[in-house]
Amino acid sequence: MTNVKHMKWWGWGVDGVSFHHEDKPHLVPFVKRAVGVDLNATPDPPLSLDDLPVPDPMIGPDLLAELTNAVGAEHTRSDRLDRIVHTYGKSIRDLLRLRAGDIPRVPDVVVYPADEAEVQAVVDAVVAADAVLIPFGGGSNIAGSLEAPADESRPVVSIDLGRLNKVLAIDEGSGLARIQAGVLGPEMEEQLTAKGWTMGHFPDSFTHSTLGGWVATRSSGMQSDKYGDIADITRGVRVVQAGKVLVLRPLPSTSTGPSVREMILGSEGRLGVITEVTVQVHRIPEERVVLGYFFPSWEAGLAAMHEISVSDATPSITRVSDANETEFSFSTRKKSAGISSLVSKGLMKVLERKGWDLSKICLSFIGYEGGKAHVARNRAIVKGIVKSHGGIVVGKGPGALYDQKKFDTPYIRDYLLDRGAAADVSETAAPWSQLQPLYTNTIDAVNRAYEEIGTKGWVMCHLSHSYHSGACLYFTFAFRHDGKDPLAQYEVVKSAIQQSFVDNAGTLSHHHAVGVEHSRWLEQDISAPGVHMISGLLGSVDPGANFNPGKIIAK
Amino acid sequence: MTNVKHMKWWGWGVDGVSFHHEDKPHLVPFVKRAVGVDLNATPDPPLSLDDLPVPDPMIGPDLLAELTNAVGAEHTRSDRLDRIVHTYGKSIRDLLRLRAGDIPRVPDVVVYPADEAEVQAVVDAVVAADAVLIPFGGGSNIAGSLEAPADESRPVVSIDLGRLNKVLAIDEGSGLARIQAGVLGPEMEEQLTAKGWTMGHFPDSFTHSTLGGWVATRSSGMQSDKYGDIADITRGVRVVQAGKVLVLRPLPSTSTGPSVREMILGSEGRLGVITEVTVQVHRIPEERVVLGYFFPSWEAGLAAMHEISVSDATPSITRVSDANETEFSFSTRKKSAGISSLVSKGLMKVLERKGWDLSKICLSFIGYEGGKAHVARNRAIVKGIVKSHGGIVVGKGPGALYDQKKFDTPYIRDYLLDRGAAADVSETAAPWSQLQPLYTNTIDAVNRAYEEIGTKGWVMCHLSHSYHSGACLYFTFAFRHDGKDPLAQYEVVKSAIQQSFVDNAGTLSHHHAVGVEHSRWLEQDISAPGVHMISGLLGSVDPGANFNPGKIIAK
Repeated sequence: MTNVKHMKWWGWGVDGVSFHHEDKPHLVPFVKRAVGVDLNATPDPPLSLDDLPVPDPMIGPDLLAELTNAVGAEHTRSDRLDRIVHTYGKSIRDLLRLRAGDIPRVPDVVVYPADEAEVQAVVDAVVAADAVLIPFGGGSNIAGSLEAPADESRPVVSIDLGRLNKVLAIDEGSGLARIQAGVLGPEMEEQLTAKGWTMGHFPDSFTHSTLGGWVATRSSGMQSDKYGDIADITRGVRVVQAGKVLVLRPLPSTSTGPSVREMILGSEGRLGVITEVTVQVHRIPEERVVLGYFFPSWEAGLAAMHEISVSDATPSITRVSDANETEFSFSTRKKSAGISSLVSKGLMKVLERKGWDLSKICLSFIGYEGGKAHVARNRAIVKGIVKSHGGIVVGKGPGALYDQKKFDTPYIRDYLLDRGAAADVSETAAPWSQLQPLYTNTIDAVNRAYEEIGTKGWVMCHLSHSYHSGACLYFTFAFRHDGKDPLAQYEVVKSAIQQSFVDNAGTLSHHHAVGVEHSRWLEQDISAPGVHMISGLLGSVDPGANFNPGKIIAK
Repeated sequence: MTNVKHMKWWGWGVDGVSFHHEDKPHLVPFVKRAVGVDLNATPDPPLSLDDLPVPDPMIGPDLLAELTNAVGAEHTRSDRLDRIVHTYGKSIRDLLRLRAGDIPRVPDVVVYPADEAEVQAVVDAVVAADAVLIPFGGGSNIAGSLEAPADESRPVVSIDLGRLNKVLAIDEGSGLARIQAGVLGPEMEEQLTAKGWTMGHFPDSFTHSTLGGWVATRSSGMQSDKYGDIADITRGVRVVQAGKVLVLRPLPSTSTGPSVREMILGSEGRLGVITEVTVQVHRIPEERVVLGYFFPSWEAGLAAMHEISVSDATPSITRVSDANETEFSFSTRKKSAGISSLVSKGLMKVLERKGWDLSKICLSFIGYEGGKAHVARNRAIVKGIVKSHGGIVVGKGPGALYDQKKFDTPYIRDYLLDRGAAADVSETAAPWSQLQPLYTNTIDAVNRAYEEIGTKGWVMCHLSHSYHSGACLYFTFAFRHDGKDPLAQYEVVKSAIQQSFVDNAGTLSHHHAVGVEHSRWLEQDISAPGVHMISGLLGSVDPGANFNPGKIIAK
């Protein structure tokens, strides 16, 4: 056994934890209305691993012997479960393909190195044998960054970094921690908080994603407004390449030509295997609070977030949902907790009397961290801005609930899929002045796509991160699929969203990477010369295309 | 005439402005003691352009005709002055070589395109003719980024971007400005402030450096603590390459693989010609103040800067000088202004009675920007931290003086050179925990170098920028040269500093780029695989090595 704990092979999270609706009385009618799916109907039967058409491993005895020699027999795995777990990430496309038994190119072997020396031995064996190496962290990727090309004829080796899970050292005098790349979010924060530190990086995937994965895909977390995106947090890095290790020392800033650090960030395994990252860490703040707010409209919420971003306030979280996402949040409320108290306690009547159109209410969460005086002052600045845009403070209850439940959302996808609905997410970032047209045009594009495929669907959005000159918009969509070719239906919807992003001054992805899912839009995002530059870089490091081929750039 | 105003061909700044000591009564004895040079002695006679052995242009009529066709005859210059101005930057090595008539490879022609289309025509003509193209902004570079290799046998074309000097558009809704790359700092800020905006980027070279130059060298400014380094400010960019234009749209953040934006940053002309940059701009703050502080020692000053960097305060400037630099600052005081009042008004006696060793006093400047309440609160936080490290607030007078005089320092180099002393600067960045040993070891290394070359010299340092996990240390050194081979003497001192930087966890340069001056240390900084990655990138974009060859990576 490797002792590396994986997610369910067929869905999000660990076995035994899943979404359920029994304690959420408002969800059934909401989903019926929004997506046309009856949650009380009998769900599809669970999948069985035995039913999957797993192809036999295609790997010669020499390479297998080399790999076994590198990491040990017990850490060289070719059983069905290990191989299937490492075939895909967790996008809706991945989940649909697994359910359809569509697994043309399963890794031939999975290796679990214990340290950088073993990673080097694996890398060198793979390159010498002209095989393919795909680094694997938590397996949460939703851009197709983990899959081998369907037509790959060379042996495919998945290298699982899960045993490299230690915080190696903390430089307390600098706020820097050297950490192995395979550590999962909770494992890492536990080791840091034991010594009074936090990295402050909390993506939605936190419980099932790794530090190396965050770096390889340019992750962002829900407190990135304060702590920065992973690109800001990452200072030093070690990357195993063929026969050598790239070593970038931790530096606060440097002018050493084109940034090699910023080449590794987002490299999705194409420039080698990230084994260690030196990151900025922070003392756990004296105070931390997340407050809920209501805005009378999406436009008002957006304008307030913009004003906050250029104010003297420095909140840790700035988030506002559109009316649809707010309606969804309300529909998941339990009989008496957090949002429930708001929705039921007469507040809605008060707002109605104030002239609010209740169908347009937008729920917002804003977080604060620091000393008590800092938090108090920031809350006061934000309160003034919120009020000037017609919003109101609704207090700590909903904020605390959001904070507790923030990592639960991905579970709902499998639940819906069992009941005939496909759901996924797409996010972008754009300048502030472009966000409203981008939003409107993207919502329209999704609804046109639903019409095109002739189904009922839902789309909702929130602003998830603010920057000085723009913000991230995060869209969630769900539709009742036809049960025949849900993948083709998904393709229509997903393409409509992505095309709308790049057509409306947005990027193809704010923090979910390119993978194979988004590479079609790369040229429209960074122009053909930009694609050529990335291509040239990849080719110079990996002339044999042994490192995760086909990702970022299709060929 | 091109209407592009250049610096003196032989030194810093424009004709008619220079440093003088007549109004600084304490400077003459200080320099005599520190460097062993008598400022009252007769200076070397001024240089004459006519005495320079400028080689004839080596360029064929076809390329010349193409270039003339591209930008017009009046903007295609081959006169001695234009060619000499574009031969070097302004490092002490450059100044010494000009004074020695050491100019083996002067550009054969200087072109001044008016817009991106003309840049494209120049680039395409140069590449088609297999010539060499060197982009030129303000000419302030001190890393050798502007010079042609001495043995370059192909025609060398200097492309001066000075006519691309307009702020093209301001997206007021996003805080983004589209600006032509050839604009000088003051020209740019004037256009921005006319509309109520500032970019907030003020390097020491501000008056004579350009936006494109800042991007190409990864510049940092004295208010970067608030506004970010140029890498943070730069959002979009347009770069002319052979037959095409790289276009990166302005995005607040993105996960599109290895960052092409971060490849252009620091590219020193090797990836094409930057024609346009979209930058973050900010509303001019309600209040802006720079305060002076004294610390009883360098260690105390460093510790205070570190504590400020992890506090809730967000100052715009954090700067502290060591005792030597403080002594230098005191020596440049006029009879009655700013620092003078402090040094003379009995404060020193008070400090002495408090137990301070006056020879160890360290002068610090900390700047604040924002609303009045924000500035007041930040000043209060900083005051508490300063006091807890034994420091005192010395008020607005010295801060205001620093603020007025901040761009004057480079002038002193020519003045000293006229009198037999060579002076230059080297800066680095390192984690907080490494700054004290890096400082001590670097000072020791410089003093050993002075011993080695058998001369009297001075070295001083300030912390110029703070980050969460480290800071920039900025060293200035000056020594009496032997009048025979000052370049060889400089080489000993400069090498000692650079080697100390990389040996003590520092980078080879924080914001002065690599050029040819620092490329020897690149491998020690970013490791051999890092150098290989940059090399692969450059080679894929510029296989013929037509774009500023020899910079960043020697060969």
